[in-house]
Amino acid sequence: MLFKKIGIIDEDYKHRPDMYVGTEGDRITYISSDAPEDEARFGDTYDGNGKVLMPGFYNAHGHSPMSLMRGYGENLPLDRWLNDRIFPFEDKLYSDAVYWSTLMTMAESMRFGIVSTTDMYYFTGDMVKAVTQAGMKTNISRSVTNFGTPVEDSVGFKEMKEAIRAYHNTDEGRVKVDASAHAEYTNDIAMLEAISDAAKEYGVNMHIHLSETEKEHKECIERHGKTPAEVFYSVGAFDVPTTAAHCIWVTEHDLDIFKEKGVTVASNPVSNMKLASGMCNVVPMYKKGINVAIGTDSSASNNSLNFFEEMKIFALTGKVTSMDAAAMTPQQVLRSASRAGALSQGRDDCGLIKEGFKADIIAVDVTGPNMCPSDDLPNDLIFSADGKDVCLTMVDGKVLYKDGEYTTIDIEKARFETINAKKKILSCL
Amino acid sequence: MLFKKIGIIDEDYKHRPDMYVGTEGDRITYISSDAPEDEARFGDTYDGNGKVLMPGFYNAHGHSPMSLMRGYGENLPLDRWLNDRIFPFEDKLYSDAVYWSTLMTMAESMRFGIVSTTDMYYFTGDMVKAVTQAGMKTNISRSVTNFGTPVEDSVGFKEMKEAIRAYHNTDEGRVKVDASAHAEYTNDIAMLEAISDAAKEYGVNMHIHLSETEKEHKECIERHGKTPAEVFYSVGAFDVPTTAAHCIWVTEHDLDIFKEKGVTVASNPVSNMKLASGMCNVVPMYKKGINVAIGTDSSASNNSLNFFEEMKIFALTGKVTSMDAAAMTPQQVLRSASRAGALSQGRDDCGLIKEGFKADIIAVDVTGPNMCPSDDLPNDLIFSADGKDVCLTMVDGKVLYKDGEYTTIDIEKARFETINAKKKILSCL
Repeated sequence: MLFKKIGIIDEDYKHRPDMYVGTEGDRITYISSDAPEDEARFGDTYDGNGKVLMPGFYNAHGHSPMSLMRGYGENLPLDRWLNDRIFPFEDKLYSDAVYWSTLMTMAESMRFGIVSTTDMYYFTGDMVKAVTQAGMKTNISRSVTNFGTPVEDSVGFKEMKEAIRAYHNTDEGRVKVDASAHAEYTNDIAMLEAISDAAKEYGVNMHIHLSETEKEHKECIERHGKTPAEVFYSVGAFDVPTTAAHCIWVTEHDLDIFKEKGVTVASNPVSNMKLASGMCNVVPMYKKGINVAIGTDSSASNNSLNFFEEMKIFALTGKVTSMDAAAMTPQQVLRSASRAGALSQGRDDCGLIKEGFKADIIAVDVTGPNMCPSDDLPNDLIFSADGKDVCLTMVDGKVLYKDGEYTTIDIEKARFETINAKKKILSCL
Repeated sequence: MLFKKIGIIDEDYKHRPDMYVGTEGDRITYISSDAPEDEARFGDTYDGNGKVLMPGFYNAHGHSPMSLMRGYGENLPLDRWLNDRIFPFEDKLYSDAVYWSTLMTMAESMRFGIVSTTDMYYFTGDMVKAVTQAGMKTNISRSVTNFGTPVEDSVGFKEMKEAIRAYHNTDEGRVKVDASAHAEYTNDIAMLEAISDAAKEYGVNMHIHLSETEKEHKECIERHGKTPAEVFYSVGAFDVPTTAAHCIWVTEHDLDIFKEKGVTVASNPVSNMKLASGMCNVVPMYKKGINVAIGTDSSASNNSLNFFEEMKIFALTGKVTSMDAAAMTPQQVLRSASRAGALSQGRDDCGLIKEGFKADIIAVDVTGPNMCPSDDLPNDLIFSADGKDVCLTMVDGKVLYKDGEYTTIDIEKARFETINAKKKILSCL
């Protein structure tokens, strides 16, 4: 595709108006203020009038099938939400329900400009089927909890390894499989060590929850005399590239560990506020040079995948938790929303509008009254744009969403089947 | 207009599917699950398939013309933002710039479902002209700061009274004019007393800033031995219905004053986080029975008027500041977004979908993937809907916005003139 006379957010996160951007196959192969001589090689053209191209969003922490539980059991304390609503519902989940809800989640993701998700759940095969059909990218993981079950008896651990063997680096590399320990408090040390060893053996990344609540953080210290980050460090989890979700209650020493081991922090500001877990102050993390990415968490605790909203609240959270209106540059925030997530997924050639990089691109309509007048476009995209200003989402050079149309998903059928699956599960409760 | 087979958020903030809602003139005159016998009297019909009607939003605190400064001077500390950017820019403001930017702000407001704004600025005549043309509602005020100027020499005070005399209860009551003391720290006691006396004399409401920053709050106590709320109480400001914006640093005694005098708190969560002023904990305010409304503040510190986003962040803020995931019911939040603002503006017959009430209504598309599956629609409208899911905005029975079209505003001309006005001002700096 050739995008003509379009604004772009370039690799330095600066706005450059009236550019030409060409994609061939799955790559960006042309970026210039001049029109290319041979337009034909890029295939279709796209009129960039009133639009801006930016890197698609890398959602650094999600649980896609949980969109089935969107709004289910709202406004309850965390323990009642989990025990009375989420766990009984999940107990009735079945293969097709996971497939359809993941497909619907992919539709919502691309609608809001997300191109890839670092995803953690179970029913991995059904999720991979949906993501592959959608044409999206994922670093997926079958998350392990053992609660004392011996390593050799853990179904979760077995399924985690099977998922890696079956799906890692499939669908032309769009699907990667990570190892995953759900969290410190849901696993014993033997299991954490086994998972870490498996990650190293298979050469895959790690995805965990870490210090989401004060209770979890404090109880870990009581249990082990170490913070969750220190526990994961000691079992060797961080010897592979790791994404640690939440990281609200972390210590200065935890941050030093993240820096030393190259751990990515996936901050989930909306979910953290909604579940009253707290607010992650990412400003000191930036100062230390830690790779900070942004996640939505699941739609059950958000309750949407509106990544423009998430990015704005991420920026607001950094400002208010550090009590500094000047904290968080637009460049930091935009990088966290795209490039930082791509790097955390081991996709070094993704997450920037740059020649030779994968064509994971979104086009944003900047003609709405919410963008008028515009002052500095990178900043305006963070604070003024609306989620539904996204008018095109492209992954690996293929248009997946454009102006209300989903090219890989029968949206009416997906909606019907998702609603149906939820009804079916509720009827068993 | 007759809305047919449409979901509604009723006066108890419950969802009722498949309803018929009819408007005649500026009122809602028919609500039933049965079709009316004489459809013709309602004029046009509206197919409610996939849509939900809810009360339009009452934006309880804004500075409309400041959309001109959207994104101007971002990511600076508050004092540099004001002194280096906002104040010099405002010094060059002129009549037409205010008119066009207010008109553009009205377009953005209706696009996001806002029907009325409690607005504070100067150039009141130009603002009224724009709001009236747009067909929107406003409680507008010419805000007074005196910084020691004697009452009789204050241009602001003179203009405030002139604005009340000229525009209060004009445009069929859509335009009301409030008295306004900008804040305690920008006025001396004599001026605060004079403004309060004028409000009582003219029988109008009061609009003020209160305890937005810790500095302002503490310096007031040093100056007067009283909190800002206590100062306003002592000068008689609260003897008329008052909207107090921000209220972040208020004390228990301040809340008792609000309750006693019926003061409305206008919470502005996005602006407060963005300027790193802090976060307003509204949960104790609800518990005391205080009227809590929601404001966007200006686009210069937000930087949009996306009221769905504001409502969500308002709810998130209440949950996280009280560290209680169960805090803030959907009914409380929706009431704060609509009815509470209408009451604060002295519009007792506004802010609910109810027979006999003014037809200030928005229709929301609930078929997007962000709303699938839906569980409890009032909750989903707060946490899952996107600002641009608004597909119709009606004020006093007149459709102002529908499916991308603005019926009272030449949007292209407004955009052109707003951008031009900004360029003109920048060229003088």
